[in-house]
Amino acid sequence: MTLHHLRPELFWNTIGSHRPVLTIASGDTVVAETIDAHGFDATGRQRGMRPNPMSGPVFIAGAEPGDCLLVRIGEIRMTSTTGWTYDVLSPTVLDPQAVPRLPERRKTSWLIDAANNRARLAEPPVALAEWSVPIEAMIGCFGVAPDLGQAISTATSGRHGGNMDYRGFRAGTEAMFPVAVPGGLFFLGDVHAQQGDGEIVGTGIETAAEVNFSIEVIKGRKIGWPRGRTAEEIFTIGNARPLDQALQHATTEMLDWITTEHGLDAVAASHVMGQLVRYDVANVFNPAYSVACRMPRSALP
Amino acid sequence: MTLHHLRPELFWNTIGSHRPVLTIASGDTVVAETIDAHGFDATGRQRGMRPNPMSGPVFIAGAEPGDCLLVRIGEIRMTSTTGWTYDVLSPTVLDPQAVPRLPERRKTSWLIDAANNRARLAEPPVALAEWSVPIEAMIGCFGVAPDLGQAISTATSGRHGGNMDYRGFRAGTEAMFPVAVPGGLFFLGDVHAQQGDGEIVGTGIETAAEVNFSIEVIKGRKIGWPRGRTAEEIFTIGNARPLDQALQHATTEMLDWITTEHGLDAVAASHVMGQLVRYDVANVFNPAYSVACRMPRSALP
Amino acid sequence: MTLHHLRPELFWNTIGSHRPVLTIASGDTVVAETIDAHGFDATGRQRGMRPNPMSGPVFIAGAEPGDCLLVRIGEIRMTSTTGWTYDVLSPTVLDPQAVPRLPERRKTSWLIDAANNRARLAEPPVALAEWSVPIEAMIGCFGVAPDLGQAISTATSGRHGGNMDYRGFRAGTEAMFPVAVPGGLFFLGDVHAQQGDGEIVGTGIETAAEVNFSIEVIKGRKIGWPRGRTAEEIFTIGNARPLDQALQHATTEMLDWITTEHGLDAVAASHVMGQLVRYDVANVFNPAYSVACRMPRSALP
Amino acid sequence: MTLHHLRPELFWNTIGSHRPVLTIASGDTVVAETIDAHGFDATGRQRGMRPNPMSGPVFIAGAEPGDCLLVRIGEIRMTSTTGWTYDVLSPTVLDPQAVPRLPERRKTSWLIDAANNRARLAEPPVALAEWSVPIEAMIGCFGVAPDLGQAISTATSGRHGGNMDYRGFRAGTEAMFPVAVPGGLFFLGDVHAQQGDGEIVGTGIETAAEVNFSIEVIKGRKIGWPRGRTAEEIFTIGNARPLDQALQHATTEMLDWITTEHGLDAVAASHVMGQLVRYDVANVFNPAYSVACRMPRSALP
Repeated sequence: MTLHHLRPELFWNTIGSHRPVLTIASGDTVVAETIDAHGFDATGRQRGMRPNPMSGPVFIAGAEPGDCLLVRIGEIRMTSTTGWTYDVLSPTVLDPQAVPRLPERRKTSWLIDAANNRARLAEPPVALAEWSVPIEAMIGCFGVAPDLGQAISTATSGRHGGNMDYRGFRAGTEAMFPVAVPGGLFFLGDVHAQQGDGEIVGTGIETAAEVNFSIEVIKGRKIGWPRGRTAEEIFTIGNARPLDQALQHATTEMLDWITTEHGLDAVAASHVMGQLVRYDVANVFNPAYSVACRMPRSALP
Repeated sequence: MTLHHLRPELFWNTIGSHRPVLTIASGDTVVAETIDAHGFDATGRQRGMRPNPMSGPVFIAGAEPGDCLLVRIGEIRMTSTTGWTYDVLSPTVLDPQAVPRLPERRKTSWLIDAANNRARLAEPPVALAEWSVPIEAMIGCFGVAPDLGQAISTATSGRHGGNMDYRGFRAGTEAMFPVAVPGGLFFLGDVHAQQGDGEIVGTGIETAAEVNFSIEVIKGRKIGWPRGRTAEEIFTIGNARPLDQALQHATTEMLDWITTEHGLDAVAASHVMGQLVRYDVANVFNPAYSVACRMPRSALP
Repeated sequence: MTLHHLRPELFWNTIGSHRPVLTIASGDTVVAETIDAHGFDATGRQRGMRPNPMSGPVFIAGAEPGDCLLVRIGEIRMTSTTGWTYDVLSPTVLDPQAVPRLPERRKTSWLIDAANNRARLAEPPVALAEWSVPIEAMIGCFGVAPDLGQAISTATSGRHGGNMDYRGFRAGTEAMFPVAVPGGLFFLGDVHAQQGDGEIVGTGIETAAEVNFSIEVIKGRKIGWPRGRTAEEIFTIGNARPLDQALQHATTEMLDWITTEHGLDAVAASHVMGQLVRYDVANVFNPAYSVACRMPRSALP
Repeated sequence: MTLHHLRPELFWNTIGSHRPVLTIASGDTVVAETIDAHGFDATGRQRGMRPNPMSGPVFIAGAEPGDCLLVRIGEIRMTSTTGWTYDVLSPTVLDPQAVPRLPERRKTSWLIDAANNRARLAEPPVALAEWSVPIEAMIGCFGVAPDLGQAISTATSGRHGGNMDYRGFRAGTEAMFPVAVPGGLFFLGDVHAQQGDGEIVGTGIETAAEVNFSIEVIKGRKIGWPRGRTAEEIFTIGNARPLDQALQHATTEMLDWITTEHGLDAVAASHVMGQLVRYDVANVFNPAYSVACRMPRSALP
């Protein structure tokens, strides 16, 4: 149960079979520095390039294709006193035939008050002078090297994880990824101090951070898409366009989970899912959209 | 503030400019009988045809095109001791290239225990022998006559409402519909005792019910899509395929709401929505899918 | 084989079970006046309302639900010397995240030179001063009353036909529609002098016309979607959003046609369709998009 | 104008910045061996892995990011006497709520008669005993290394090209790709002897081949997506899901082409495209679907 520190010199814009910067044992804990989506660190120095420069990869000894990585997300600590967002809704979430034309989007600065756990616009419009949001930090982009030698842009996502921008990947959540190459090769970055469903302005509150996590290898647990677990729920993630297909991937993966590990056949699983399932729209902005399919643990045998 | 009773002799399979069976004043309350999605009433007698036979229409005196109907949903009382669902996941929510073939779908009976507020399968598979779900009744299909003389099947939905199958339309919610014809012509039916997000088995727990509601005309409040309000939130509904477009309609309507009535310009509204919005997938089964865009009232000036 | 003339006094904006203005026998021929999509006739007088005012309905004696109407499209004669289009590409066909902002759309006039079978812009930009297009007239919107008592807006389309805007519905084509109500109740209108694939500026060259057609009832031929036949090909139409679903409906209908009437099983039909099928994108502008699935007649047993 | 021969020892399953196996000058010609989609060569020996093993990459001297590669496709010679297809329609092209269940898909052998330019099933069902199709060979998968160091699976496609499966990429067509890395790094493979629109059985007639092509670097011609040119037409390709988005990419690229190189502004280009554009559905099977947007050269100034 060693504690490792990851302070990258080099950041990656693809998730692929790159040379590991850290090798750990299953169960070890890592404290990793992450920089923001445009490559800026906590001091405001640009150390990586867009999109979403990644810290890593971490090689997990013993991980082999067909296994699963269980990533326990611990504290996500804000290391910067500022963050940024875009300031208008994405055209992907507006009716192109109905909407009035919005202004061109700009980057807007936010002030991060870690002591009080609030963030607010640095130069708010008058109507939002008193407005602030709680900090509920999440990991926007993380995952493992895909198969076939692919190196996939951190602008997008897939079975390997990637830029899912799901606010459910926060402190206390256990994330699971399908191992496709020896060692798994885990990457992370793109922390958001806050983000609504869908990432509908194209960003959360993008900022630098320090993420504490441990990784365990679950041998022989073959999964098809990223999964997650909290105290109350299990969830699966599908990444694709349109939203319909992302939802299909997530639901198919949940059906597989419940029928494989919870002793329900397809009909029993359908009953439980049909009356109790919840969906989250994680992002509707990136090249692949992301949907989470959630089930309460209390409903499952 | 008169109390009316609606006990239909005839049920409609379209929402359109049909002859009213009840005329009320703005603010009046109605207690309406509804029958289930296949036309069966609380006694098990078939009195309507599929799909989703509607009670109504109700003519609301003074409602004119350009107004909005505010429907306060009161108690939704279960009048039957049974309900039914389909028993396998819809192909619309499964990856067609990945999923194992499911059995052909069948109708399955449920027992509704109104006293204890629980529902359970009448003949459960062994794995679900002890399993039940809470009753959280909702109106599956309701809305107002559309413009142009259209009569729209109750299998689907649109700007006028219809078969949205959103679990947020429950007791305590205020629903809003855009009036397109004189009197509004309000229809309702298709009550579900329970339903998960997306109506992913193609049904909720379909049953007969008695719905208590009042309707108020809000003069000159022009809205584009169904809206709703609870103690904590406001929400808008978009109905279309694919999900992306349903989400676009809902988000565009929310942007309109916030900028028109809450004094925020498009940029300020984008900030608030971007960090705090929530989406619900209401249904991914009907010809038009439905998405709800929700905003906490506390976040709005 | 009577010849009828249809000169409507009233035009419909929905396709539904309206009172017939003409009753014909199976095999009869009709010469029908149509007005343009905004309701203007050949003399420039507005006699109908948008969207797409329809001539009809025509009651075809003997047509019953489960039958099919075979509509032989004869000459489509231009009766106006002008037409109009919109002048910028629809946002539905452009990448919302990439495209420069186009000007607001305006209506633009065209001159129709029927003698020379050419159409040209009335006030062309300099770069198009010498530019003209051939007249290849087509019926934008036609179909039959749907089931359930529905009355469906002529802005959109479905199993009953409607606003498909397919350039393949031209002189010489035989169109087929599924009869859903006694008499079929056939409507037509919205003639375009020319239109590219997809109707990507939101219109063809919209104009008034006179359409010559005959209608035959094919008893007991149950079809699911509009179909067509030319000397070289058979085709099926699917109407839905997104394009994927329109294509699915068209392809499923073609598979049904080939396996039902051409003696091929699903595997043999898959071989023939897999190597020889052609798709046309009919429209990507209307509420429902339209796709044609075409097969060469020579390839079918 | 040197003639090169490319006989790979190693085949790639991703298109990325791999080590070149051949360096050529702009204008040079290459005769390249390609193996089939499952890795089998003309002799039936398996020399590569699925999906779509690529020959290459070819480094073109002088090609730099911001340039464009013009690939003139010459003869595509069948080198095998057999090919294969799948034998049932893909679920991606069928209505999941309507279609009868098809048999599980199998691989089926075809006989390729290059002398007579025909292909036929090796063991046809009785109904297709006399049925054959013309050979109209095409390149299923080709393209150039993408930016950011990405290595993209040859199962899919994007701005860099890839598995587009468009029957328009045949002898006589000039294909254009956006150069993203020095030398361009061109890959090709996956030749089909024949294929219908959409690749709706999931394959064309997959076979080994020898492809003759030349490559020219067009300096400073920045394009966004693959393009093509024949004697009669120019075309652009969009790759994405759903089909709507693929069509948006293709149409946006065509608008860019016409306004940049043909002297038309957005309105004039809209007029020409609106009345004369054609779309081809290239594939509706792969992870990214492909649409071609075509314009007649005669219509362009």
